[in-house]
Amino acid sequence: MANFKLHSTDGDARVGTLQVEHGTIATPTFMPVGTAATVKALTPRDLREIRSQIILANTYHLWLRPGRDILVEAGGLHRFMRWDGPLLTDSGGFQVFSLESRRTVDAEGVTFSSHIDGAVHRFTPENVLEFQEALGVDIAMILDVCVKLPAERPELETAVQRTSEWARRAAHARSRAGTALFGIVQGGLDETFRERSAAAMIELGFDGYAIGGLSVGESRADMYRLARFSAALLPREQPRYLMGVGTVRDLIEAVDCGIDMFDCVYPTRCGRNGRAMTSRGDLNIRNAEFARDFRAIDENCDCTVCSTFTRAYLAHLFRSNEMLGPHLLSYHNVYLLNQLMEDARDAIAGRKWMAFRNERLAHVAA
Amino acid sequence: MANFKLHSTDGDARVGTLQVEHGTIATPTFMPVGTAATVKALTPRDLREIRSQIILANTYHLWLRPGRDILVEAGGLHRFMRWDGPLLTDSGGFQVFSLESRRTVDAEGVTFSSHIDGAVHRFTPENVLEFQEALGVDIAMILDVCVKLPAERPELETAVQRTSEWARRAAHARSRAGTALFGIVQGGLDETFRERSAAAMIELGFDGYAIGGLSVGESRADMYRLARFSAALLPREQPRYLMGVGTVRDLIEAVDCGIDMFDCVYPTRCGRNGRAMTSRGDLNIRNAEFARDFRAIDENCDCTVCSTFTRAYLAHLFRSNEMLGPHLLSYHNVYLLNQLMEDARDAIAGRKWMAFRNERLAHVAA
Repeated sequence: MANFKLHSTDGDARVGTLQVEHGTIATPTFMPVGTAATVKALTPRDLREIRSQIILANTYHLWLRPGRDILVEAGGLHRFMRWDGPLLTDSGGFQVFSLESRRTVDAEGVTFSSHIDGAVHRFTPENVLEFQEALGVDIAMILDVCVKLPAERPELETAVQRTSEWARRAAHARSRAGTALFGIVQGGLDETFRERSAAAMIELGFDGYAIGGLSVGESRADMYRLARFSAALLPREQPRYLMGVGTVRDLIEAVDCGIDMFDCVYPTRCGRNGRAMTSRGDLNIRNAEFARDFRAIDENCDCTVCSTFTRAYLAHLFRSNEMLGPHLLSYHNVYLLNQLMEDARDAIAGRKWMAFRNERLAHVAA
Repeated sequence: MANFKLHSTDGDARVGTLQVEHGTIATPTFMPVGTAATVKALTPRDLREIRSQIILANTYHLWLRPGRDILVEAGGLHRFMRWDGPLLTDSGGFQVFSLESRRTVDAEGVTFSSHIDGAVHRFTPENVLEFQEALGVDIAMILDVCVKLPAERPELETAVQRTSEWARRAAHARSRAGTALFGIVQGGLDETFRERSAAAMIELGFDGYAIGGLSVGESRADMYRLARFSAALLPREQPRYLMGVGTVRDLIEAVDCGIDMFDCVYPTRCGRNGRAMTSRGDLNIRNAEFARDFRAIDENCDCTVCSTFTRAYLAHLFRSNEMLGPHLLSYHNVYLLNQLMEDARDAIAGRKWMAFRNERLAHVAA
């Protein structure tokens, strides 16, 4: 199930709510990534505290470890990881295609060997959906064909055609009403392919539409251009999800393109590496200047970490390789993006989006 | 300041309260180790939740990083790490003497080179106390001379004499009323030396007395024998602290010897390594049998981790090298010891200590 309501717009930016099996999500929203059934260094309680509404997990990783049987025996992914809010799983397409030398694609699916133990596995549009449904997730993604950019036109065209064909097979394989299914628009940086891919997806009729194949190394200008172009091709009354986006600047620009949902490992990866996200740009907390800086990470942030700990303490934790550093910084970084999305929703609903966008962008590095 | 009240005894086991600058501690109590101004993988809030009453930090580590100046600028150790309850710092003696080839001892103090950058530092009875007082801790420890066992009698005798002399210097160097100072009884496995050391410490008149030089590799029988012997030498109306003890069995036996305070890295180190402490002995959560075990870590434990997560999920987290594993298991392990101490206090106060002791010991491996 997926019930999207568009509440207000300001320019292309939109505010809505997406109702799925385990709850209702205010959009635009940022989804932290819980690759292996855990958002790294954060507990489910932490995630509720920082008002994360929905978490993303990875089919590829969960398929390999702990595997379908244990997840089903546990009573599904929600019960396994003890997160009772909405969950979205990706299809594994992106991970499998990143394996390059370890996978072969044919018209029916992808055969690959595990990065953990080399065992051979096979993904098809049907079994990947069946896996996600068996886990009982709120939103499943279709298996798509991901192409490394830059790519030749014939390769891109094949990927778009195959993704459409696989989307059709996934749409026909659905068997669980509680799990919504999103299509994925591919097509690289080519507007004609994007149009063709979007048309094919819309014709199949999904619960929502992702824009894939962006945020993979292209320029910011290209990403924003294609995100806006692709968003405009999609049904106004359904949710739009831009995959792989998670910096302050990219989120603001993508909300401006009319996107509703985002995911990225950026805030948690930065959190583990000592990179503090702030409303004034990122800080490397290991820099000498922070060793005696007794201010909050972000003086404009009201998260528990910012209202409790100092930059000097965080700097000390990272220098001492203390696990508490990654925990505290991941907590803050995800909170920052959740708060940014909440502020964006307020600005759009109040029809002050453009002023908000310009003011926030002025504070983050170009 | 330190105000100890003995409330009840059952055999040699005792229940009391120790009032120090930042709060009142019910004894017997277990102190988790926050080496570098953080109990590894746990936030101050976690520690309050699991009812830790007092935390130990290490002078050696804090001296080197972040160093005295930053800690003083931060407003002291409590404010730096944002723990507003009681704090005890060790004197650095144990760490410095463990450096072996990197340190030289003379009658006045110890010169050593940092394990971080090789820089040369010097500890004296006076400057180690001054450091702890500057940090504003509730309980400071005297600088003692630690000897590796087994040791020859002359070496042991010199260590006892020097520790007594350093204790005298520390006692005379005190300058902060809010910081209590504990003496340390040394003497290895030799009862004559233990007597001599205890007499010297008691003559100087400290706020409490630690028993050092045990739990360093000797047999359990020797440890319990010397702990009981040493405890009996100490003033009844003052707190007794056995350094380096932290397994379920050792805590029970040491409470039985009349000890009031304990510290050990054991529960947090086990937590990081996938070793789950339970009332029925330790479990290696990585073992194959736990991959599909959907019970709590310890079915007799009512901590948040045990009432939320399964062994199967913990097993998955450790196999996937996910930071959440060490966090959850450290939380549970420290909780287990805090709860054990609370149960012990109840048993002693209810004059059911021996039955409690025998029942609990019967469940843990010999």
